[in-house]
Amino acid sequence: MSTPEERIAELGLELPEVVAPLASYVPAVRTGSLVYTSGQVPLVKGEPTATGKVGAEVSVEEAVHAARVCALNAVAALKAEVGELSRVKRIVKVVGFVASAPDFHGQPQVVNGASDLLGEIFGEAGRHARSAVGVAVLPLDVPVEVELIAEVSG
Amino acid sequence: MSTPEERIAELGLELPEVVAPLASYVPAVRTGSLVYTSGQVPLVKGEPTATGKVGAEVSVEEAVHAARVCALNAVAALKAEVGELSRVKRIVKVVGFVASAPDFHGQPQVVNGASDLLGEIFGEAGRHARSAVGVAVLPLDVPVEVELIAEVSG
Amino acid sequence: MSTPEERIAELGLELPEVVAPLASYVPAVRTGSLVYTSGQVPLVKGEPTATGKVGAEVSVEEAVHAARVCALNAVAALKAEVGELSRVKRIVKVVGFVASAPDFHGQPQVVNGASDLLGEIFGEAGRHARSAVGVAVLPLDVPVEVELIAEVSG
Ligand SMILES: [Ca+2]
Repeated sequence: MSTPEERIAELGLELPEVVAPLASYVPAVRTGSLVYTSGQVPLVKGEPTATGKVGAEVSVEEAVHAARVCALNAVAALKAEVGELSRVKRIVKVVGFVASAPDFHGQPQVVNGASDLLGEIFGEAGRHARSAVGVAVLPLDVPVEVELIAEVSG
Repeated sequence: MSTPEERIAELGLELPEVVAPLASYVPAVRTGSLVYTSGQVPLVKGEPTATGKVGAEVSVEEAVHAARVCALNAVAALKAEVGELSRVKRIVKVVGFVASAPDFHGQPQVVNGASDLLGEIFGEAGRHARSAVGVAVLPLDVPVEVELIAEVSG
Repeated sequence: MSTPEERIAELGLELPEVVAPLASYVPAVRTGSLVYTSGQVPLVKGEPTATGKVGAEVSVEEAVHAARVCALNAVAALKAEVGELSRVKRIVKVVGFVASAPDFHGQPQVVNGASDLLGEIFGEAGRHARSAVGVAVLPLDVPVEVELIAEVSG
């Protein structure tokens, strides 16, 4: 059974450095068996993969990719907190905020970019409860922000 | 003391089938004594009870009803996870997202549709912390989405 | 080591009465070692410190102040739940909702109003994970709403 880290490599992905928080908070906090990550934005080496509102400046495909990058950044924050991703027993809850044009209501499809990656990395343990909502605008004008809660052991 | 299931019947309501997730996630996840539900949309037999923004296409009354349907769907997701609703020790937290016209700020009244039903079903155990916010737009263009966290036993 | 209550006084602040919920919910709920507060609005003696959208009617400075007031109200709700703030072991997660003009994406700077105060009051225990998002509109047309989760002992 490959480890989550091996699956990330098999997916041709690389766990980035934890994205430095945009302000006075920390990437993740553990309390008991739960780890809460901060809302993750789709930065790759400090640059947003897209900016603007989905259904306007940003296409659904670009938004799905951005959600995937948010999830990868969330996994990096998780790893920094727990060391080995095999300690992640379950991704419990994901919330996906999608900066949306007022008439765009495909948020579930967009946030699947994050949910699908979590499934690919953690398998059964990646199956999570989720809320996806369309918001007016996000930090740095990114199209997607994703936060998650994970149950961890050890 | 009637069970929550009996109170639902007394209210003339019927617990629906758990609403099939709109994408790659599950209706609810349990971790320790907490159950997190996914954001619930106001679908009845697969059809939204209303679409559009509250304060524009959707009246406050329609939105209150939609929030009530979201809460009933959340209770159905909870029951599917724990079996007997008497295992629900407390509804801990509710978040109500209300798709709102920019000048509509009656979100608390709308989300009361959900909060009041939870009180009617669970009594004292239904008293919860809550956030209500006005968002730009929601999946399927529904006017309300409600997620909750419950403490359960057994 | 001064208590959080002493630090509040040193900051020239006074813990207000817990803001009466705007609808059918309670200010905070404890479950095990976690306390979830309701979303707090920037009311001082029942009056909002500002109304409108940040980047339009509300300046960034006014919004930062509003976020600070939200955080102080959240601490009041926490204290009402746990009695002594020294029981707060960690502020685990903060979510800041900022009613935003569509082209305003400085939500992190705004929510720092809340995050910085939590750091000033709780020191190391005040360091938290956080999500900040721009929403269309909030209850009572306030510019900011802040909810938090705290780990407590005893
Ligand atoms: Ca919004």
